[in-house]
Amino acid sequence: MKITAVIMAGGKGERFWPKSRSAYPKQFLSLTSDGETMIQKTIKRLLPLVDTEDIFIVTNESYVPLINEQLPDIPAENILAEPVARNTAPCIALAAAVINKKYDDAVMMVLPSDHLIKYEELYLDTMRHAVRVAKKDENLVTVGITPTYPETGYGYINFCSAESEDMVGVYKVKKFVEKPCLEKAKEYLNSGRYLWNSGMFVWKVSSIMKNFERFLPAMYEGFLKMKESAGTDSFSAVLEQCFSEFESESIDFGIMEKADNIYTLSGSFGWDDVGSWLALEKINKTDEYGNYVAGDVITIDTGKSIICGNKKLIAAVGLEDVIVVDTDDATLICAKSHTQQVKKVIENLKICNRRELI
Amino acid sequence: MKITAVIMAGGKGERFWPKSRSAYPKQFLSLTSDGETMIQKTIKRLLPLVDTEDIFIVTNESYVPLINEQLPDIPAENILAEPVARNTAPCIALAAAVINKKYDDAVMMVLPSDHLIKYEELYLDTMRHAVRVAKKDENLVTVGITPTYPETGYGYINFCSAESEDMVGVYKVKKFVEKPCLEKAKEYLNSGRYLWNSGMFVWKVSSIMKNFERFLPAMYEGFLKMKESAGTDSFSAVLEQCFSEFESESIDFGIMEKADNIYTLSGSFGWDDVGSWLALEKINKTDEYGNYVAGDVITIDTGKSIICGNKKLIAAVGLEDVIVVDTDDATLICAKSHTQQVKKVIENLKICNRRELI
Repeated sequence: MKITAVIMAGGKGERFWPKSRSAYPKQFLSLTSDGETMIQKTIKRLLPLVDTEDIFIVTNESYVPLINEQLPDIPAENILAEPVARNTAPCIALAAAVINKKYDDAVMMVLPSDHLIKYEELYLDTMRHAVRVAKKDENLVTVGITPTYPETGYGYINFCSAESEDMVGVYKVKKFVEKPCLEKAKEYLNSGRYLWNSGMFVWKVSSIMKNFERFLPAMYEGFLKMKESAGTDSFSAVLEQCFSEFESESIDFGIMEKADNIYTLSGSFGWDDVGSWLALEKINKTDEYGNYVAGDVITIDTGKSIICGNKKLIAAVGLEDVIVVDTDDATLICAKSHTQQVKKVIENLKICNRRELI
Repeated sequence: MKITAVIMAGGKGERFWPKSRSAYPKQFLSLTSDGETMIQKTIKRLLPLVDTEDIFIVTNESYVPLINEQLPDIPAENILAEPVARNTAPCIALAAAVINKKYDDAVMMVLPSDHLIKYEELYLDTMRHAVRVAKKDENLVTVGITPTYPETGYGYINFCSAESEDMVGVYKVKKFVEKPCLEKAKEYLNSGRYLWNSGMFVWKVSSIMKNFERFLPAMYEGFLKMKESAGTDSFSAVLEQCFSEFESESIDFGIMEKADNIYTLSGSFGWDDVGSWLALEKINKTDEYGNYVAGDVITIDTGKSIICGNKKLIAAVGLEDVIVVDTDDATLICAKSHTQQVKKVIENLKICNRRELI
């Protein structure tokens, strides 16, 4: 059975403002010193497992030129542009329709386009394992991440004991839980029964579509229409119509929390969702004072700061725990404790109708 | 007797980097919201007291074009370019020579070009009083500032009781003291016998030259040569020669600390020497959170900060007590507690031979 990958690349990513913009979100940025963008890394690390022609990218219409530019090897027909964003369930139905038309059944890995993974060999082993589990019966597999600290910014997966000997390291999912408070997060960590929800899934097209039919029947109707028109001239018109009718729905809430046969594996491959500028010091090398510095930067008496220069000198004097990001038309200077407030800047820009800066 | 003003405008001013540069020091910057530069303000506030043709500017050769641009009304022959900077004593000898040639004797007010004064009427009254004292006998007058807090960054003037009834508010100077430690500064403030040394002086040309003859005889020889050649073709050659022979000497140390008949007045006219970026919040209006903001700036959860934008948006999030100054080729981000460390940035640039940024 063919192994395919569906990369979800429609995210807006306001959290990397001013580098990310609505026209240029996080997945198309390079946040590491090697210059590769997030989506380029996502594709590259998959290649030992999936053929380029079996990688599908679901994205927004406006990002298609960026994808063509950054990923010239991906066939044009594999880039699937959603007319409007309707969260992950319609995105997955669309990809499933195209893959179902092409291969009838196939294994489908669904992956975010903007996460980093440090240990790629371990990642590939985990994904191979997930594929084996997904091929069996009608299993739906969600890839969990072994927590290393009580993070309050992620959802968690509560799992049961392993069931049988031929499923080593694979656990039945008891329930999905939302982002917890710190106390709860500590409890989850100590229990040894919770994993971080990474948003990575593996299943057969046939398995997930049965669940669409059961839990999201309207979307299943859309799937059938999209499948029928895939590869024909009417495809984009059908997409347009289906998406205008789809409710906005996440795959987690719409299917995963309701379905049976949900399994998880505990991945430990240096996963990072790169959720804010704070991630830069985790994923890159810092200097002896704990600063991550890129570009033309002079630091004097400055520590634990993240400073990304652009085309001109940035001189940082006496700073601690500060993030500086310079771009051609905007400079962000933000206390590390206030990264969540960056969205207020964007709100302010929206109110002032300064579209060019958003 | 004519009243003349000598504006000392040769200062380098590294403390306002990155706005000030060696080619563009503080006196030529606008640091207030009205857009006037420091030297333009200095000249403008003098005009009720001195005719434009009696204002002389001593500066560095390289700043002459800037002065012509910013002060087009000052006659070309009143702009005196020092071949090399040799501190204030040679600067004053040069101006005295030119004024002595033009008017024989005259009152000479010697003034820095880069200080701010809030209450201009009070300033003019104080200067008129100083002129009256200077006209009498061979008095040398230094304008003191009534201290309002124990500043450790200024020199102080220790004065004696008033001598006679016709010299109300005028005091004989006991001694000049260097920048004190905080404890000493508090002592000075509490004693009621110390004023801040503002670097403003008033005397007759004849009075100061007698003191040059007595305490700085080599410089007095130079004065005579410069006076003789003033207005002739040989002037610049004579200047060149004199300045190459002059020792570097301040008027404070070379004459004021040694001479007799030194008087001071206590000025209270909102004087500020604008010694660092910190002055911006003293001399400009701040917002309700204590921020001084200029240019295209968005502040979120930010207080007590100084943010000077340039051509692009600056978004400040969660900052406190931070100074941000953006220019075309460099951005400074500096904790208020570290303004004295800005010079380390310049040292670093010198070591790396990045002349264009200094």
